[in-house]
Formats: sequence, C-alpha cells, structure tokens
Amino acid sequence: MSKLLAVGTVAFDKIETPFGKTDKILGGSGTFVGLSASTLEVETGIVSVVGGDFPEKYFNLLQSKGINTKGIEVIKDGKTFFWSGKYHNDMNSRDTLITELNVLENFNPVVPNDFKEADIVMLGNLHPAVQESVLNQLKSTPKLVVLDTMNFWIDTALDNLHKVLKRVDVITINDGEARQLSGEYSLINAAKKIHTMGPKYVVIKKGEHGALLFHNDKMFYAPALPLAEVFDPTGAGDTFAGGFCGYIAKTEDYSFKNMKNAIIYGSNLASFTVEKFGTERIENLTKKEIRDRLKTFKELTTFNIEIE
Amino acid sequence: MSKLLAVGTVAFDKIETPFGKTDKILGGSGTFVGLSASTLEVETGIVSVVGGDFPEKYFNLLQSKGINTKGIEVIKDGKTFFWSGKYHNDMNSRDTLITELNVLENFNPVVPNDFKEADIVMLGNLHPAVQESVLNQLKSTPKLVVLDTMNFWIDTALDNLHKVLKRVDVITINDGEARQLSGEYSLINAAKKIHTMGPKYVVIKKGEHGALLFHNDKMFYAPALPLAEVFDPTGAGDTFAGGFCGYIAKTEDYSFKNMKNAIIYGSNLASFTVEKFGTERIENLTKKEIRDRLKTFKELTTFNIEIE
Repeated sequence: MSKLLAVGTVAFDKIETPFGKTDKILGGSGTFVGLSASTLEVETGIVSVVGGDFPEKYFNLLQSKGINTKGIEVIKDGKTFFWSGKYHNDMNSRDTLITELNVLENFNPVVPNDFKEADIVMLGNLHPAVQESVLNQLKSTPKLVVLDTMNFWIDTALDNLHKVLKRVDVITINDGEARQLSGEYSLINAAKKIHTMGPKYVVIKKGEHGALLFHNDKMFYAPALPLAEVFDPTGAGDTFAGGFCGYIAKTEDYSFKNMKNAIIYGSNLASFTVEKFGTERIENLTKKEIRDRLKTFKELTTFNIEIE
Repeated sequence: MSKLLAVGTVAFDKIETPFGKTDKILGGSGTFVGLSASTLEVETGIVSVVGGDFPEKYFNLLQSKGINTKGIEVIKDGKTFFWSGKYHNDMNSRDTLITELNVLENFNPVVPNDFKEADIVMLGNLHPAVQESVLNQLKSTPKLVVLDTMNFWIDTALDNLHKVLKRVDVITINDGEARQLSGEYSLINAAKKIHTMGPKYVVIKKGEHGALLFHNDKMFYAPALPLAEVFDPTGAGDTFAGGFCGYIAKTEDYSFKNMKNAIIYGSNLASFTVEKFGTERIENLTKKEIRDRLKTFKELTTFNIEIE
C-alpha cells in the first residue's frame, strides 16, 4: 500500500447551521483528510501545527484511527487555529464569524523522516509557499502530488501558486476558483488552461452538483449524492480529497481510470460528513455503511442505453 | 413502436447571445420535441397553432422528418407566437425582450383523430387548463403522460396545475420551480411532495448541472455533457423532453430502468441543440453523431469501483 502524507490544518471549528450550533470542536483540512483516508487503513501522516490548548483526546482519536501524528507540531504557549462560521438556510453559502490564525500564522511544516518518501502527498489549502516547502523536504519525487487551494491564494499569492503548481499532478478546486485561476468561463476551457500550469489532472468541485475530473481530452463526472438534509457542509471538500487520495493509496493504481473510482469514493465519503457536525459522522463510519452507499452511488449513475 | 403526441408551441424566436444574433427563426416547444423524437423515427404528431405568416418551408421541414402536422392549426389572419430574448455572458440567465402571444392567446388545441389513442402524450409548457383539455380529448388513457411547466403557471394557475398533475405520470421541471411548487428546499423532499400531487416520476432539470429522476425511493442522476462553448441554450429543455419521450416511444419500455436511458438520450440530444442557434443543429443531426456522443456520455459517467 502507498504511503500518504497530508499537510493541512488541525483546528478548532465552531459551527452554526439552521439545525443547531456547536462548541469548539475538532476540525481542519488535515484532520478530515486523515480521517477519510483512515477508512481504507491507509498509512497516513499528518503534518500540521497546534497550540498547547489542543486536547490529548484528539491526538488519541487520530492515533486510534492509525494516523501518524508525529508531524503535528505542538507549540505549548500558542493557541490552535480557530474558525467559526454560520451557514445560511440554503447551506450553500456561509459567513465567517471568527478566524484566529494563532499558531498557523508562522506555520513552518516539518515532514517527519518516516514520510519523506511518501508516495502520495496531499497539500491542503495553505499558503502556496508553505505547500512548496513541503515538497522541498521530500527525499524522492512522490508518485502523486495533490493540491487544494482557494480564491484567497489566487488573490494574494498568485506567483507562489503558479510556482508550486508546476510540481503538482492533481489540483482540486471549486468551479468559481477554476474560472478565476484560468480566466475562462467554460470549465472545459478552464481545465485546459490549468493543465498548462502543471497539473495533469484537474478536479473541479461543484458542491451539491458533484465534481468533474479532467485529464487532457478525457472527462469524468461524479454526481454528489442528493441528500434529504445537509446538516453541516464543513469538511466535505477535505473529506472528498482525503477519500480520493486514500483510494489511490490503497489501490496503488495511478491511472485516469482508477482516479474515476477515487473520485466516487471521495464523493461517497463526503455524503456522510455533511450528515452531522464536524468529524462526528466520518469518525464513526462502518465499512458496511460505506459499501451500502457506494451501491446507491452506482444505482444513481448506471444506465444501459443501447448504442445501435 | 409507440405513438407520441406532442402539444406545445410552434413559434418564431429571435435570439441574441454573446456569439451573435438571429432573425426570426423557427422555434417553440412543440417544434423541438417533434424534431428530437424524429431522430428515432418515432411516429409523432404535433398539436399547436400558428398564424398565416408561418412559412410553408417550416411545415415541409417538419413533415420531411416524418412529423405529422395535421394538429397544427393555421389561423390565416393571425400571427404566429413570437419570442425574442437575449442571453447574458454566462448563458445561464436571459432577458425576454419581446413576447407576442398572437394566435397562442386563444389556443384551443384539437387532437387529430390519428392521435387520440397516442401511447405517450407530451404536454409542453402551456396553461395547465389547456394541457388538461388535451387529455380530455383522448379516447384511451395513454401509457405515459409527461408534463412540462414553469414558474409562471405556478404563480398564476396553481389550482389548474394541481388538477392536471393528478393525471400526469412524469413531470419535468427545473430545480427552482420544483422548490417553488413543493415548498421544499431539498430536491429529494421536493420530489417526494410532488409525487403526492400525482406524478410518479419527477424529472428535475438543473441546466449545466444535469438532471435528476426520482421515482419513490429511487434516484438517477444524468450529468449534462460539459461543453467548451454553449452557443445558444434555447430549446435545450424541450430537446431533452423530446428525446426522453422519443426514446420511450421507440423502446416501448416504461420501466424506471429504461427511463434512465431515456434521460441520457434526452441529455445527449440537448448537448447538440445548444451548439448552434435554434433548431439548426438538431435538424441536421446524423445517427453517427448521436451514437458517438452517447459513447462520450458513457465514458463520462462510467466507473468500476470495487465494493468489497
């Protein structure tokens, strides 16, 4: 099985939705990616930073899932990154109420020796220079580098982003950001342009409308599972990315054909994450639940039209 | 093969998009439904009304495709329904510049004898009382009644709409209208509520995001084919409906399983319609083009994830 290195935030989230609100709970892109990959027992290490206020029980939780936490630096006299947000009624838009960067402000990721030859590197949504510094620490070129980014970095660190993108195989980005990064409205043309920036694979996330995978002239469309109720969308994108990387790590098949499956696996997992607050659902997921819902996914998309 | 009766408008359209503009060209829901079904050589009759200004060449065109035009009433001293619209840069929204109802204002559809025992009836987007008057003229209950409607009728003729919906098997409606009709935000819950109004099958159209088919607890998701360029979206929805009905008429299989194929066939056709102005593309479509693109559709959605 391939080894997965996940760089991202390990954080506190405080979330309000039309269905209720939480206290400070476990969140962060690194957390969701790690927990998602752990559903496939992939050897995963998280590189991140937390403050002295980060509770031991969360370390225990991650470790109990087989996640290597050596790369999570603890700054004793610092405070953990904290985000608070409120979702609107349609659950597609949200207001950020609080962002306290805290220890994340001077985050200088250090890759543990065990993961310097990782096969797959997932660069969570961070400053692109920080993302690149991770690649610079590796002893060997990974088989797959996956990068997530957002409009904030396109606005404020575009040169750095272009620099790291040259070393990236797969970019995951939402539709609006793909348009912004490429200057193209059509997602096909946007993907083409992003290919020229480095990533051979472009994953465009469209939220409730699913995700598209582009690889040169090939395309794949994974729907999002329609849900009667989206309880809390926080972490859905990171769950998707973690499921995607985890599936490729597990199967050790880096082909376009297998990436389709990886996208379905990620979409499937994400459909669980949004059913409860934060990591609650993904933490407690059984193999049977995953399997059953994958069947639903298959039924959702399978047709057998005759092409005469 | 089943017989298809299509009730809808046969009209003049004048369209402006970022790519150019047209003079008055052939349009209307009945036209698009008929032309789409004709790609499968289905026996189709259109019921509609036009004015004395409607050119003979358009009748010839429809007839050359095997479409029965006996049900298109000609009001010699009247003028044909005329719509003019302008699409915005994103092609997802448009302004109506002109709507001249003309002969449509007092449209009283008369079903020709040949189609009073039609197997499939497609009730295009018209006043729901007009849609119902068509059903009242039939000699036998059709195997499938498909109804298209829009927000305008939900706003202005809701009682009539509820009345006709009781006699409808399949409703095609866009996502915003499904939410409006049901009062439910979640499309799953919206479909459930619409089931109770009559239609056993609910098709929710999401434009560039594809379409969903609901039947009790079953769901199917057909993506829209991502296109580098949408030239003119006019008629895409009616092409979809015509392809859907045509496919079922051709295969004579009214099962949920086959409706999935019908939705794919309709989505596939719609991806052609938007490539040129008006009916230009759908008029000149070859079997080979349809077949080749269906293959692309299959590749777009096929995955083979192992469910262990």
